[in-house]
Amino acid sequence: MFCIKPVSQVVNECKAIIKQKNKSRAVKIENALGAVLAEDIISIEDMPSFARSTVDGYAVKAEDTFGSSENMPSFLEVTNEILMGKEAKEPLDFGKAQKIATGGMLPPGSDAVVMQEYTENIDSMLSIYKAVSPGENVIKAGEDIQQEQVIFTKGHKLRAQDIGILAAMGITLVNIIESITVAVLSTGDELVDPNTKVLKQGQVRDTNGYSVTAFLRKNNYLADYVGICIDDYKLLHDRVHELYLEYDVVIISGGSSVGAKDVTSDIIQTLPEAQLLVHGIAIKPGKPTIIATSKNKLVIGLPGHPVSALVVMQHVISPIIASMQGAKPPAFEPTIRAYVKQNIDSQTGRTDIIRVRCSTDGDKIIAEPLLSKAGVFSSLVKADGYIIISESVEGITKDSEVNVHLY
Amino acid sequence: MFCIKPVSQVVNECKAIIKQKNKSRAVKIENALGAVLAEDIISIEDMPSFARSTVDGYAVKAEDTFGSSENMPSFLEVTNEILMGKEAKEPLDFGKAQKIATGGMLPPGSDAVVMQEYTENIDSMLSIYKAVSPGENVIKAGEDIQQEQVIFTKGHKLRAQDIGILAAMGITLVNIIESITVAVLSTGDELVDPNTKVLKQGQVRDTNGYSVTAFLRKNNYLADYVGICIDDYKLLHDRVHELYLEYDVVIISGGSSVGAKDVTSDIIQTLPEAQLLVHGIAIKPGKPTIIATSKNKLVIGLPGHPVSALVVMQHVISPIIASMQGAKPPAFEPTIRAYVKQNIDSQTGRTDIIRVRCSTDGDKIIAEPLLSKAGVFSSLVKADGYIIISESVEGITKDSEVNVHLY
Repeated sequence: MFCIKPVSQVVNECKAIIKQKNKSRAVKIENALGAVLAEDIISIEDMPSFARSTVDGYAVKAEDTFGSSENMPSFLEVTNEILMGKEAKEPLDFGKAQKIATGGMLPPGSDAVVMQEYTENIDSMLSIYKAVSPGENVIKAGEDIQQEQVIFTKGHKLRAQDIGILAAMGITLVNIIESITVAVLSTGDELVDPNTKVLKQGQVRDTNGYSVTAFLRKNNYLADYVGICIDDYKLLHDRVHELYLEYDVVIISGGSSVGAKDVTSDIIQTLPEAQLLVHGIAIKPGKPTIIATSKNKLVIGLPGHPVSALVVMQHVISPIIASMQGAKPPAFEPTIRAYVKQNIDSQTGRTDIIRVRCSTDGDKIIAEPLLSKAGVFSSLVKADGYIIISESVEGITKDSEVNVHLY
Repeated sequence: MFCIKPVSQVVNECKAIIKQKNKSRAVKIENALGAVLAEDIISIEDMPSFARSTVDGYAVKAEDTFGSSENMPSFLEVTNEILMGKEAKEPLDFGKAQKIATGGMLPPGSDAVVMQEYTENIDSMLSIYKAVSPGENVIKAGEDIQQEQVIFTKGHKLRAQDIGILAAMGITLVNIIESITVAVLSTGDELVDPNTKVLKQGQVRDTNGYSVTAFLRKNNYLADYVGICIDDYKLLHDRVHELYLEYDVVIISGGSSVGAKDVTSDIIQTLPEAQLLVHGIAIKPGKPTIIATSKNKLVIGLPGHPVSALVVMQHVISPIIASMQGAKPPAFEPTIRAYVKQNIDSQTGRTDIIRVRCSTDGDKIIAEPLLSKAGVFSSLVKADGYIIISESVEGITKDSEVNVHLY
């Protein structure tokens, strides 16, 4: 029995039902790029830990420079040079200055730094041609980060700059949620290994095993392509039960012969505590998708069409796995703004994913829909990105402005 | 001698001078995600290799269905079922139909497929309730890709769907350009290893080594953080000469004490056939950047400020390394459209990179500039993305619509 649900409903229902993976492990930060934090990160010290100069110049008392100008410089005696990496021990008195480099520690008594280019230093006598105000060219201790401050919350996905700030705080080991493991199994009597050089009539090389696995790896999951299984109840049953024990998510792609979808669905229901959540999604392409849980595992029956398989992975399965991983969903989706080249029909109640090729016309970007038949895989390769026509929209008229999500 | 050049000029000049890496190697496609092709990929066969059905149904001669409707069905005799993966050997005669699944091979004599839902099959007699035209629900041989067609050109960066189509064509090994290897060396007397638990006064943990390496890895380069070197001419000289032999690109980050920039620049000039291309870029932050070549190697003196270092990596160095790798530059940059919360000043002749935090206000996205001091690293962590104010623009006024590049 098919029960076709809208995409948003499918994703929300599945997110609500599927438990978050909570197995965490400690990793070195240099290996944590793209990983999801299993804990809040709280700073244990102020950053910087001391007042630092942000420029090359001279540490001063700001009031000693007040009124300084090109025509009326102030004069200060240079008494010291602060060495990088060393404590600035010598206090600064009125009428004095100490040479300091970017990042250097401010000496006690100083409250500002005059940039080198506004000074002239002759025989330890410094002419200052521009006044500074207190705090100018200085980062105070704790100005960047205060002790006890929450820097990242659980579920944050670490970016390059985040790895940098963890290093700066001396946090070199972080607890991350273990990556979701995914098995990608292709089924279909017509499928042969891509290494098959010459195809017999009726045979097709497996593509989903490769493209779906690559898609998952791009998204930081531990995906394994586990090969091809023919459409045989017993063989497929045993393979799925085997994979189910080993992986967090089992994706069964294809089974395109008549009735194979039912076989997949029947087999899924033999898994422990199996619960069929979705049997058909209101998305084009990608409608005949099965989503089920078995204990805390996720089992997916993906359409066999390579285009449908990738569209469903991107729009439906990916957000569900991300939620299973405990990653916060991205707040904003970057796109390019383009104008559609022709009218595009769509049905209300269904999400249409239209692959487009983009070109420029002066300052404008033109999006040309690639309205090829389902199963024409090259459309995905020719496409620069895609437009989402949501459930409530009937179609898009020529020259409308749209958001193109790039591949 | 500083010679400040605009960003676009720096990138174009460096791209023109720096030779492309042309060392290639064969890799299995399952390991080629994100790799850059060293050759054009030309199909050696038609895809699909035979006419296939795109639906579950019955292969027919289209003219046998003409005029069929709910009230006036056509009647055809079902003579065969086409098995998946097998050659459809039995020719189809007028008045006959053969059962076929999605992806099945069309039998000789058939030219269309009637979808199962528009039929009723009782005792081998098929009622057809909807006419099909010739070619309907069929992908012809070669309709997806023709033999001898160029699928990808040299310099293409492989995406998940591209890996899939290579598998479909039986191309399981591809020549890719070897990845660029990058050494990231941090310099500065104040720097200590991030594993240092308690800092002495004046000390700072190295961040650039970690963030710059992570940034490069995210972009598919083979980056190694090679540690910290103090600001000592002899030590730094020997280390740079050593790294230069081993890597395609050597990045020297920091050297923030007075005169250290000149030391870096002096050392770079001792490398074989050294050519200093850039000594200062009109970008804020990131001005004091050195770019040099030595034979076919690239040597970079990166600012010590963590924020400057990452901005320069993203806007200046990254496109140059991509060009060195032979990767085609991306045609379009995805962004989000937002409205700035306040006026932002900028100087003409200089590219300003303004970090922003985004929030939603109804349907609108609001971008709030994080106008913190240089060296305040947490601004990079708080930011969702950044705005580029180009050389020709003087500033941005409150409520202007801008493109935010997400981090």
